[in-house]
Formats: sequence, C-alpha cells, structure tokens
Amino acid sequence: MTPATHRMIVLGARPVGLPTPADFALVERPLPALEPGRILIRHDWLGLAPAARLRMHEGDSYAPAMALGDVIHAQAVGEVLATRNERFRVGDPVLSMHAGWSTHSVSDGETVYPIDPAIAPPTVWLGALGSSGMTAWIGLHEIGGLRAGDTVLVSSAAGAVGSVAGQLAALHGARVVGIAGGAAKCLLAVGEYGYAACVDHRSPSLAADLARACPDGVDLCFENVGGAVRDASWPLMNRFGRVVVCGLISEYSTGFVQGPAWHRLLTQRLAVRGFIVSDHAERRAEFVAEVGALVRDGRLRMREDAVDGLENAPQAFIRMLQGGNTGKTLVRITDAGHAPPA
Amino acid sequence: MTPATHRMIVLGARPVGLPTPADFALVERPLPALEPGRILIRHDWLGLAPAARLRMHEGDSYAPAMALGDVIHAQAVGEVLATRNERFRVGDPVLSMHAGWSTHSVSDGETVYPIDPAIAPPTVWLGALGSSGMTAWIGLHEIGGLRAGDTVLVSSAAGAVGSVAGQLAALHGARVVGIAGGAAKCLLAVGEYGYAACVDHRSPSLAADLARACPDGVDLCFENVGGAVRDASWPLMNRFGRVVVCGLISEYSTGFVQGPAWHRLLTQRLAVRGFIVSDHAERRAEFVAEVGALVRDGRLRMREDAVDGLENAPQAFIRMLQGGNTGKTLVRITDAGHAPPA
Repeated sequence: MTPATHRMIVLGARPVGLPTPADFALVERPLPALEPGRILIRHDWLGLAPAARLRMHEGDSYAPAMALGDVIHAQAVGEVLATRNERFRVGDPVLSMHAGWSTHSVSDGETVYPIDPAIAPPTVWLGALGSSGMTAWIGLHEIGGLRAGDTVLVSSAAGAVGSVAGQLAALHGARVVGIAGGAAKCLLAVGEYGYAACVDHRSPSLAADLARACPDGVDLCFENVGGAVRDASWPLMNRFGRVVVCGLISEYSTGFVQGPAWHRLLTQRLAVRGFIVSDHAERRAEFVAEVGALVRDGRLRMREDAVDGLENAPQAFIRMLQGGNTGKTLVRITDAGHAPPA
Repeated sequence: MTPATHRMIVLGARPVGLPTPADFALVERPLPALEPGRILIRHDWLGLAPAARLRMHEGDSYAPAMALGDVIHAQAVGEVLATRNERFRVGDPVLSMHAGWSTHSVSDGETVYPIDPAIAPPTVWLGALGSSGMTAWIGLHEIGGLRAGDTVLVSSAAGAVGSVAGQLAALHGARVVGIAGGAAKCLLAVGEYGYAACVDHRSPSLAADLARACPDGVDLCFENVGGAVRDASWPLMNRFGRVVVCGLISEYSTGFVQGPAWHRLLTQRLAVRGFIVSDHAERRAEFVAEVGALVRDGRLRMREDAVDGLENAPQAFIRMLQGGNTGKTLVRITDAGHAPPA
C-alpha cells in the first residue's frame, strides 16, 4: 500500500512582499526507500502557520533560509503507513511537526507525536493541542510569567495562537483584552473566548481605543502582530510589564519596521522576550495533559478555517497572511480523519 | 554644631537638550527641625549619575518628574551630625541614596547605609561599592544571567557602571568586550579592567570593528548608551542572548530614538530587560560582602573623576553627560573623608 511518489508544494520563487500563487509549485517526487529508524506518514490534514513566511526570506530566521525547490514548512496529522522505527506501528494516528505541504512525509520520528482521538479529533491536534496551542501556553506561562489579576493584551486575538492565549489567560484569572481585525473577530473574542474587551486594529483611533480598554495598563502583552499594533500597545505597558514576542505577522511580507524607543523599557523596567515553541518540546506531555483536559471538557475551543486539497494550500496561506482566516488554517489532504467541527 | 541652613543646587529651568549651567541655581535654605525618626547628614562627597538627567524631563521616568526648584538627585557619603533614629549615632559614616546636590540632608534612614572604612575609603562607597557597582552586579547576575564563557559586551566600558561590569564579568570567566569613547578609555579598559578588546564608538567603522572584536557574537549585552552604539551591537546578539538595559545616556539629552526591529528579537529568541538598582535594595548586604572583598583585595578598581565644591557640580554633570569623565564623577563638599585615590 506504500505509494511510490508523493505530491508536494515547493518554493518556486522567493516572494517579494505578500506571496502570490506563482511563488509556489506543485511537484510530484519519488518517495525514498524507508531506511532503518524511519517512518512513512500519510498526511490527512495540514496546519498552516504564518511563521513559514519567515523562512522564505533570504537570510536565516529561526532556521536556515529555504532554498528554491524546498517543500514549504507545515505540521500535519495523519497515519503511519510504514515503519522501521520501533516506537511506531502501522496505523498509528500521529502529529508530525516537520511534515511540509505534501501528501506524505518520511521522518525519523523525533518530532512525531501520537495523537489520542479520545481527547480530541485529529484536526484539534494541529490547533489547540498542536503548536498553536502550545505556543500560547509556553508564551503565557514560561516566557510571560502569567499571574492571576494581570491585564493581558493579546494581538491577533481570534487567530490560532491568540484565541488559545486569550482563553488560557482568562481561565487563569487574568483580565484579557484583544486586538483583532474587524468587528466579527472582536465579537468572537468577547463572546466565545472570554476576552473582557476587544479592539479593532483597523480603527483610526486604535491607541485611544486600547487605552480605554486597558484602564489599568497592561501587565503582559502577547505580541503576535508587530508594527503599528505593537506600537499602539507599547505606551500602555505597566511597570515590570512583560512583552512576549510570539510573532510579527504584519511585518513578514511588508518588511521589518523599527521598534519603539527603549526609554520606557528602562524606566518601566520592562522585559521583552522572543520565543519559539520548538525550543520547549520537552514540556509537550505536560501541555497535552493540562490543555487536553480543557479541550475535552469543552472549556477551550478554536475555530477552524479549512480548504480542500493540497493545491489550495498557497491560497489559504496567502489569505491567512492577510488576516482573512478565523482560527486555525487547515488544508484537507484526504478524506480520512474527522471533519473539522463547524 | 547643627547648622541652621544648608546650600543646595536646584533645577532652575528645564533643560532643552544638553543642560547648561543656567539650568541650575545655587540656593541656601533653612534646615528643618529634626523630627522623630530622622537623621541629619553632612555630605562630604556627592556621586553624580547620568540618570539624574532623566528626571529633568517633563513626564515621569523612574520617578515623578522633578519640579523647578527641586534639589538635583545624587547620592552622598558623609557623617551623621544629629539623630533621632535609634539605628544611627552621631559620627556614623554613611552612604545616603537620596541625598541631593547639597551640603546636608535630612533622612528617615530608609535608604541610608553604614559604610565601613576598613573595607574601602568613603568615595569608593559612591562608586564600586555604591549604586554604580551594585547596578553592574545586579545587571550582570540577576537581570542578565551571566555565565562563564559568555561573550559580554559593555558599552560605556570605562564609566562608573561599565568599568565594574567589565571587571566583574571578566572575573566570572566571561570574555568581555567594551565600547568606549576614545583611545585612552579603550586602553584603560583593556589594560586595567580585563577587557579582551575595546572598540571606540567614534570609529566610522564601528559596526565592523565590533564584529571583529566579537567573532563568536554576543551572549550578554550590558547596555549603557543606547542610540547608534546600541544599534551597532544588536546584529551581533547570539541566539538566546540577553540585553540588560541599564542606561541610554546618548539619548538623555538629545531625545529618545527608535529601537531596532523586533525581527531578530523573535528569531534569535532574545531577552531585553530594563532594570533599576533601587528595585533590588534587599540584596545590598550580599553585594557588599561579595564585591567589598574584591575591592579590599585590590581585584576590583575604579577611576574617580573629582571636582571641588558644590558650585561645580553642574559643570561636572554636564561634562559627564558628554562622556568627558573617566570613572565615577565625584564632587567634594568638605575636607573630611579621604581624598580619592589617584
């Protein structure tokens, strides 16, 4: 049953600004023979993330820059089709952290985790129980030192990471304020995710709106957006405030912009810290135990924004970079696995 | 012997840019009657610090902005002249953290510490064993997480804080690189303070000079200067690097400038943290025990840059803001106490 080839989407050209479909190429390549220690995974769903855009720049980011012809980075859930690794059996449902925009992948299993359908359906393991959710959890607790009573500000409040960050912070006893693009996302943030308030970043009075929503300032800023949204929140940071730099999505395609002056960083004794969830993989079991229980009990939810077919991944990715998604952007590759909850 | 009045220098006008002597006024005011719990201190030496410039701005900084007519902030060493506080006796040699540019001050004793001439002469308690030294010690260890083997970059490398930071880091097993203004200070840093290299910030090839001096990048940046000096060191920060924001002296008079883009903060997982030593007063005894031993044994040194007479404090302060000092800027108020070591 092992296929001889797999389809994948590779970097066809280095994007200038916002990527276009022409920057991507769909190719079919032979699957290598399975070496000892390796497994072959069939991808049922891909989970897209804005950080993949960072790797398309020339120059290193998290990792060395992608070369033209490299498969685009993504996580996937699916099933083990063949195994020469004793930790896996054929038929195991798995989450692979380095799967790529492709129908199958071969892995040494190092960053492949079993998923338990009794806790949540497969797509949730790409969202609330995947890198998005764990990024929120690590950012709030390990990097941000979240405390009950904090005012927490979350940008991209209804996004895959932001919606989990907002819910986890609210469940922890923080007062959570969101920033999101448009009234619909703000309504979702307040109505469904437990935000005390949510401000539309397109508002011409963003800074004043934010100040009104945060009358006691901000103790912990969970920064996903950068640029003008970051600049609007910076003056609200309280003494000993912490800024967790999770993403700068507004800058990925249009270019990096200067940061705020360090004057307040000094006088307010702020701590600004960048982080990447993959540095904290050793805490994954703890994360799944804690956040998995919240998901199973229905106390933590995430919207899913799915398209069908590998060939539609580029368009879904481009839409996500423009803020056109709500919640986790998914690509369905096969009919296996569960449909995402409506 | 208690005087009826004391002389002091107050803010006469809010400086625009670099302060001028006309921004300061020498006045004589009556000393208040000593209330219960208070002590009267005779100042023998003042220690000037650039941070006093921050308080002259309108708007809050560390503390509420100074009003016109307020005494300029400084620390002093001197002697208790009168006491209604059981923790102090007449004749006690003391360091007062909130003394001001004045001949005497009245204090509740909260931030007044005994000084031990057996450890070091009085002026050293304004420098290596005063706020300058403790700022270096807190910044390196508590804020910066100094580790043996780190490459540590210290700006204002021959200044009061920087010279201690450089020496302490080198003694801890770090490779220390300095940035200072001019060849003489760089020679001092390398020849006397244990820096492995020191770069002149006036060099037209500052960025390239720094990169050459830090072939393995920078793990811990002790930032005293801000502006262009900060911008030159930012690209050298290693993954998981820490930036300790102690001061931004180049920006205090000319205006605050934007910070670097946050792209590298994210991808290199940097931590940037502002701090102020007064938040850490509870560690003073530990600091004096540890660094006092180094000073007593001659393993830690600091230059002193002294002027005579309260009326000359403004000029010494202005010269310090321009980088004209080497080491701790002191003002001698009386003939008591020891002369600074040459």
